Amino acid sequence: MSDRPTAPVPPRLAGWEHRTEMPLLLASLVYLAGYAVHVLVPRPTEPWRDITLVLVGVTWLLFAADYGVRLHLSGQGRRFVRTHWLDTLILLLPPLRPLRVVQLYTRVQLHRERPRLSLHARVMAYAGTSALLLGFSASLAVYQQERGVPDSTIRTFGDALWWACATLTTVGYGDAVPVTLLGRVIAAGLMACGLALLGAVTGSFSSWLVQTFARQEDKRPPESE
Amino acid sequence: MSDRPTAPVPPRLAGWEHRTEMPLLLASLVYLAGYAVHVLVPRPTEPWRDITLVLVGVTWLLFAADYGVRLHLSGQGRRFVRTHWLDTLILLLPPLRPLRVVQLYTRVQLHRERPRLSLHARVMAYAGTSALLLGFSASLAVYQQERGVPDSTIRTFGDALWWACATLTTVGYGDAVPVTLLGRVIAAGLMACGLALLGAVTGSFSSWLVQTFARQEDKRPPESE
Amino acid sequence: MSDRPTAPVPPRLAGWEHRTEMPLLLASLVYLAGYAVHVLVPRPTEPWRDITLVLVGVTWLLFAADYGVRLHLSGQGRRFVRTHWLDTLILLLPPLRPLRVVQLYTRVQLHRERPRLSLHARVMAYAGTSALLLGFSASLAVYQQERGVPDSTIRTFGDALWWACATLTTVGYGDAVPVTLLGRVIAAGLMACGLALLGAVTGSFSSWLVQTFARQEDKRPPESE
Amino acid sequence: MSDRPTAPVPPRLAGWEHRTEMPLLLASLVYLAGYAVHVLVPRPTEPWRDITLVLVGVTWLLFAADYGVRLHLSGQGRRFVRTHWLDTLILLLPPLRPLRVVQLYTRVQLHRERPRLSLHARVMAYAGTSALLLGFSASLAVYQQERGVPDSTIRTFGDALWWACATLTTVGYGDAVPVTLLGRVIAAGLMACGLALLGAVTGSFSSWLVQTFARQEDKRPPESE
Repeated sequence: MSDRPTAPVPPRLAGWEHRTEMPLLLASLVYLAGYAVHVLVPRPTEPWRDITLVLVGVTWLLFAADYGVRLHLSGQGRRFVRTHWLDTLILLLPPLRPLRVVQLYTRVQLHRERPRLSLHARVMAYAGTSALLLGFSASLAVYQQERGVPDSTIRTFGDALWWACATLTTVGYGDAVPVTLLGRVIAAGLMACGLALLGAVTGSFSSWLVQTFARQEDKRPPESE
Repeated sequence: MSDRPTAPVPPRLAGWEHRTEMPLLLASLVYLAGYAVHVLVPRPTEPWRDITLVLVGVTWLLFAADYGVRLHLSGQGRRFVRTHWLDTLILLLPPLRPLRVVQLYTRVQLHRERPRLSLHARVMAYAGTSALLLGFSASLAVYQQERGVPDSTIRTFGDALWWACATLTTVGYGDAVPVTLLGRVIAAGLMACGLALLGAVTGSFSSWLVQTFARQEDKRPPESE
Repeated sequence: MSDRPTAPVPPRLAGWEHRTEMPLLLASLVYLAGYAVHVLVPRPTEPWRDITLVLVGVTWLLFAADYGVRLHLSGQGRRFVRTHWLDTLILLLPPLRPLRVVQLYTRVQLHRERPRLSLHARVMAYAGTSALLLGFSASLAVYQQERGVPDSTIRTFGDALWWACATLTTVGYGDAVPVTLLGRVIAAGLMACGLALLGAVTGSFSSWLVQTFARQEDKRPPESE
Repeated sequence: MSDRPTAPVPPRLAGWEHRTEMPLLLASLVYLAGYAVHVLVPRPTEPWRDITLVLVGVTWLLFAADYGVRLHLSGQGRRFVRTHWLDTLILLLPPLRPLRVVQLYTRVQLHRERPRLSLHARVMAYAGTSALLLGFSASLAVYQQERGVPDSTIRTFGDALWWACATLTTVGYGDAVPVTLLGRVIAAGLMACGLALLGAVTGSFSSWLVQTFARQEDKRPPESE
């Protein structure tokens, strides 16, 4: 979050980041899918739950290893932790992983060809996709916490998705609300992230609409007056 | 949503679009009115329900035909589907049709005379009218889903309109909330569209107010100091 | 809401507007106070209710007379109704009168001395005061509608004020909600106006904060590095 | 909140402000901690409650004394009250003290070294931290008001924190809501401050994201096309 141009990336680190982009993107998707299956598959089907738990663990280790290698290659030591605070946070709080998926996907796209979308459209796509994935991730986590609790209003995964929608858009009906401590902590995190991300979507949409109307005006043939 | 100037529209397509503007605008209004009557008219009055169902179907076919002709005249093939993604989406999801009404009305206005409204006022008018029509459309759809359900809190069309108001403005009291799966899916769509559209209204109003205050300052005679 | 410079105001109209500013500001305040006393004073004290009703009626007539005189002096005929749409709307919907109070107060201030507030601060003050007065006005109107209704959750004027707070800020707890048709119509109006006005406050505050931080940076002595 | 450059600060006042920065920052933290312990410690442990009450009182006196000294040194008399309206308000409404903590911390940081954060990041940090501290402060105050009330939905401090989260982000589930008069007044204050502060966070995040995407585009090597 610094305005000044960051220090040049060492060539070995740049090479590592380039080579690991695609595998990490796949690992992120495997992580999300594994976690989803782990939560949503019914209890008795034990083998699946174990397999997905292993998958989630392995992908987490992959991310930890990647973080360690980059920390080493950067030659920055402790400063790396601060300048890459988002990576650090995501390593410690796995439900934030969706932010990494979008980040990696954006980088992969960047190498392929010039993006066809305008600046505002790209911000909307990035923030919107992050918000959607975060909402999905939070729905899984909250559903895992709340489903067994007696007074819970979040009984099915559909309820959890509905709750995530109402929370991300700050509508907040209150018909499905987490009641456990951990559920509320996840909810507070979703509120904070969602507010900022959806604010960015709304703001960019507004700017894009104003731009479109301004261009439309210019395009009109002057003789039509 | 591209920043770069779009490819020049082939003259035959431009001619078609110019000729079909007015009929399509009328068809959009007939579609909305037909759907409203179909939902709101009480059950026993069968003839009306059938007539409106036919009306809705015929106007949908008109829009499909128009889409097909434009797809052919553009000579773009599959690329047309991507560059006109909003038209494609509206064709598949009829409740989004209100966006088309506003779009067509704006185009009709454009040919007639120079719009009298400022840029921000036009964005406010476009986004506000779209939000209103979408809210009305969503109220009809949700009312159709929820009215027969036992635990529903949306029992009259007035309840549905009240729910749409509270949802579009993200107030979300929670006294009237959809409980069916389809009702919630429509609600989530309304939240997403409404958030973006009303954000554009709010943002433009804010810009317009700042502009007005800035101009007021300039207008004051300097000798009044 | 036009960008282009409005037609020059005829001198007789300008003179009229200058002379009536102060009386109209007073009449607006009398109107608001009279309406508040009319609603809040308990039933048996009949004389007060009648007096305030007369006050409200007389001030409304004053505003109607002023509107008529300005319509005549402008020499614009029907166009005046459109260019002064806010004045027209306020004349027909008295609860919007607070917008007029702020407008008149701003104009009175303008003649006296150069305003000391910055542009963003003035927008915040205008939009914030309008929102507060509208919220107060809507609380009175909703309280008048809801207090006698059996299932109402708005039983005291305190409840009505609390409801207005939660609605204007789009928090929308849902513990106090209008249930009558007219109450809900007023609520929808408050949501729409409040959303735009508070959005302007929030946006201006944000701009002002960014400006303040940017200036703070510049002010720092360069030798402190 | 004035745009024009403020009058130069008298050197004695500047010296006083420089010397008192650190002590006042500590006093602010002691005030917050003392108030938190006072509210959260269970009833029977009387000595702690008395100690913290004294701490809160002493720190308040310190702030009052500092305000008095600065009022005297500024040589502005009554104008000081108006130009330093935020300081005046915080002196009278202790729960707003967190705004002072952030202000003092920012000033202490300013003297030490050039801040490493960009403009938008600093606004986000300032507004976000203020919102967090205000939310914590409001949770304490509302918990103190509501815990003994029969119909209260805020029974534990966890409920109060959860309520503050839902209120600051304008989600407003309505499952935990203040019911006492004083509790609602505090809630209204939190809504107003929170809306503005979180609006600033959201707005700055949006601007920062757009900036980041715009810079990313520029950095890409042109030969990759």
